[in-house]
Amino acid sequence: MENFVFYNPVKILFGKGQIANIGTEIPPDAKILITYGGGSIKANGVYDQVKSALAGRNVFEFGGIEPNPHLETLMQAVELIRKEGIDFLLAVGGGSVADGTKFIAAAVPFIGDPWDILAKGAPVTAALPMGVVLTLPATGSEMNTNAVITKWETQEKLYFASPLVFPKFSVLDPETTFSLPPRQVGNGIVDAFTHVMEQYLTYPVNAPLQDRMAESILKTLISEGPKTLANPTDYDTRANLVWSATMALNGLIAAGVPQDWTTHMIGHELTALHGLDHAQTLAVVLPSTLTIKRDRKWQKLLQYADRVWDLVGGSEEERVNTAISKTRDFFESVGVRTHLSDYGVGLETIPAVIENLEKHGMTALGENKDVNLEVVEQILALCA
Amino acid sequence: MENFVFYNPVKILFGKGQIANIGTEIPPDAKILITYGGGSIKANGVYDQVKSALAGRNVFEFGGIEPNPHLETLMQAVELIRKEGIDFLLAVGGGSVADGTKFIAAAVPFIGDPWDILAKGAPVTAALPMGVVLTLPATGSEMNTNAVITKWETQEKLYFASPLVFPKFSVLDPETTFSLPPRQVGNGIVDAFTHVMEQYLTYPVNAPLQDRMAESILKTLISEGPKTLANPTDYDTRANLVWSATMALNGLIAAGVPQDWTTHMIGHELTALHGLDHAQTLAVVLPSTLTIKRDRKWQKLLQYADRVWDLVGGSEEERVNTAISKTRDFFESVGVRTHLSDYGVGLETIPAVIENLEKHGMTALGENKDVNLEVVEQILALCA
Repeated sequence: MENFVFYNPVKILFGKGQIANIGTEIPPDAKILITYGGGSIKANGVYDQVKSALAGRNVFEFGGIEPNPHLETLMQAVELIRKEGIDFLLAVGGGSVADGTKFIAAAVPFIGDPWDILAKGAPVTAALPMGVVLTLPATGSEMNTNAVITKWETQEKLYFASPLVFPKFSVLDPETTFSLPPRQVGNGIVDAFTHVMEQYLTYPVNAPLQDRMAESILKTLISEGPKTLANPTDYDTRANLVWSATMALNGLIAAGVPQDWTTHMIGHELTALHGLDHAQTLAVVLPSTLTIKRDRKWQKLLQYADRVWDLVGGSEEERVNTAISKTRDFFESVGVRTHLSDYGVGLETIPAVIENLEKHGMTALGENKDVNLEVVEQILALCA
Repeated sequence: MENFVFYNPVKILFGKGQIANIGTEIPPDAKILITYGGGSIKANGVYDQVKSALAGRNVFEFGGIEPNPHLETLMQAVELIRKEGIDFLLAVGGGSVADGTKFIAAAVPFIGDPWDILAKGAPVTAALPMGVVLTLPATGSEMNTNAVITKWETQEKLYFASPLVFPKFSVLDPETTFSLPPRQVGNGIVDAFTHVMEQYLTYPVNAPLQDRMAESILKTLISEGPKTLANPTDYDTRANLVWSATMALNGLIAAGVPQDWTTHMIGHELTALHGLDHAQTLAVVLPSTLTIKRDRKWQKLLQYADRVWDLVGGSEEERVNTAISKTRDFFESVGVRTHLSDYGVGLETIPAVIENLEKHGMTALGENKDVNLEVVEQILALCA
């Protein structure tokens, strides 16, 4: 096992009716900004629940945060906050709203151009406190330090992380996700699954507890994912998806083990260039990454085949192949297509992806830092 | 799944050499009290590492905290702290030192008799900040809110919990545990295993992720426990035990599921009356609790038999019986005996245990609150 530091102070309020409890989690004299996306929270009753929980409080609103939240949009919120002296942010929505709000939280007190936090790794030294009311299980943003932001002007999708943007609390009420369209639920399943794979499917370091916990999440997603798509209002099934997605990226299964993230880094460029949903890019790229890097991931691929897919017969090669194809089949089974051609993207995009990765310094990806641009090209060639 | 609140802000510094980093985790102008036990930390080098990490700092010391820490001892530390204006506590030792230090932290600012926190459930409204350098993997105290304290004068062993006594940080360096005697390592394995069982072996609530994570810890303890006893200085194996023991009782696997704790409550009384090690009482009581409550635990016993012990053949009854006897065998295999007679205690102790449980209000134990004193009597009769 590798040395690690684990720290995650996010308070999780999980279950039916928990939105009613947010009032006590926010300082009584706070000037609160509710941030949200395209307005689905107004259609599904979440907005009303939040407003009711904050009745009589000093509340502002900022809507319109888009998927893959845009720097340009978020900076409008920063301006509003500075003008009004707002001092607490409440993100109500999915991962994009949470990520965008993290950026806002860090940008408000930032001296200089806040895009430098992502583009130049400028340190975050202060941030407004924030909470989250989650309405889409997928990114894990509700219980971590990470945010991915897109600069529309230059079509760049970059990330930053800081312990200062840990939400103070996150409400996870599975019922708020019942009205999600199947596409978003399927995307969430693929996103959470891939988060686990990035932290699990590397090489063994004798960390059996972390391995088994990662496998626990994968198996739960495999069992509960299709069920919750078939019965979107079954509470327990949806609750299991929600908790799995949060646990997939809260730091716990990463503690003491190597991490990959090749698939995510390539995927970000595909979203930036072609507008694919984040999870669609993961569904396309992950099977190819596993195939191209199979030799160095061999032991973990065999363990994955055995423990997650119960593959026992056949040669090692057969089990590895089957495990990878089962991964692809699982993504397809939850409605997320796994080939670039499914999204009308051809292999002629490869040079642009390579160029952008190079521009963003992503030239030595993966747990062994051996995924250079040539290897990325091989991976993308398999994504056709 | 049941509703839950999960919150655990303890920062874990895990691995070789991490003691060297504690200086930056403690406020620079703090008046620090190092608390410890019988002095093993001076023999194994941990004391020197701590002193070296705190060189030049304002440091006091308080040693002599015994196993099942005594109120009478801890109150001496409270007096010292009040006199010297100490404002940060650093517990260096195992669960008893951590628990005792949590009590000290809460007792210092307490108005009135601090024993009321345990005996009368008096609320903890303030506590000194504390950190932990763990030297014994067992209780999970390094990453939770709980403490068990014994009042020597009246032979009472009671517990309290408060989020105010979460350690700010805990250092888990597996190397600091290499010199532990086998008895303490075996005890730690049984303690951690039983912690998981108290949160897992109840009834199903459709929480597959929590179940699988609990099973992950159990399986890791089963695989790593005997190995680390056989090779006490093998780093990875010990590291896996240390991390399993912490994860066994940090709130995570309890989130959203029912909990039992019958075995612990009976065990506390046996320690108070007869001085058995905490883990010895658990090894004695758990198999009997599972046997007596088998009907209401049936589904989870079958799942435990299947997933943790890989028992597939035979009738349900046979699998349940075998799973319970394998639990007992496992405890014996790590050197912890499982019958009261092994410790020279006869069944004539039953009335005293019952009387004390009644006195402490423990008359409706278990996940169904149906373990009354009559049932406790049945459980104890099986412990002979």
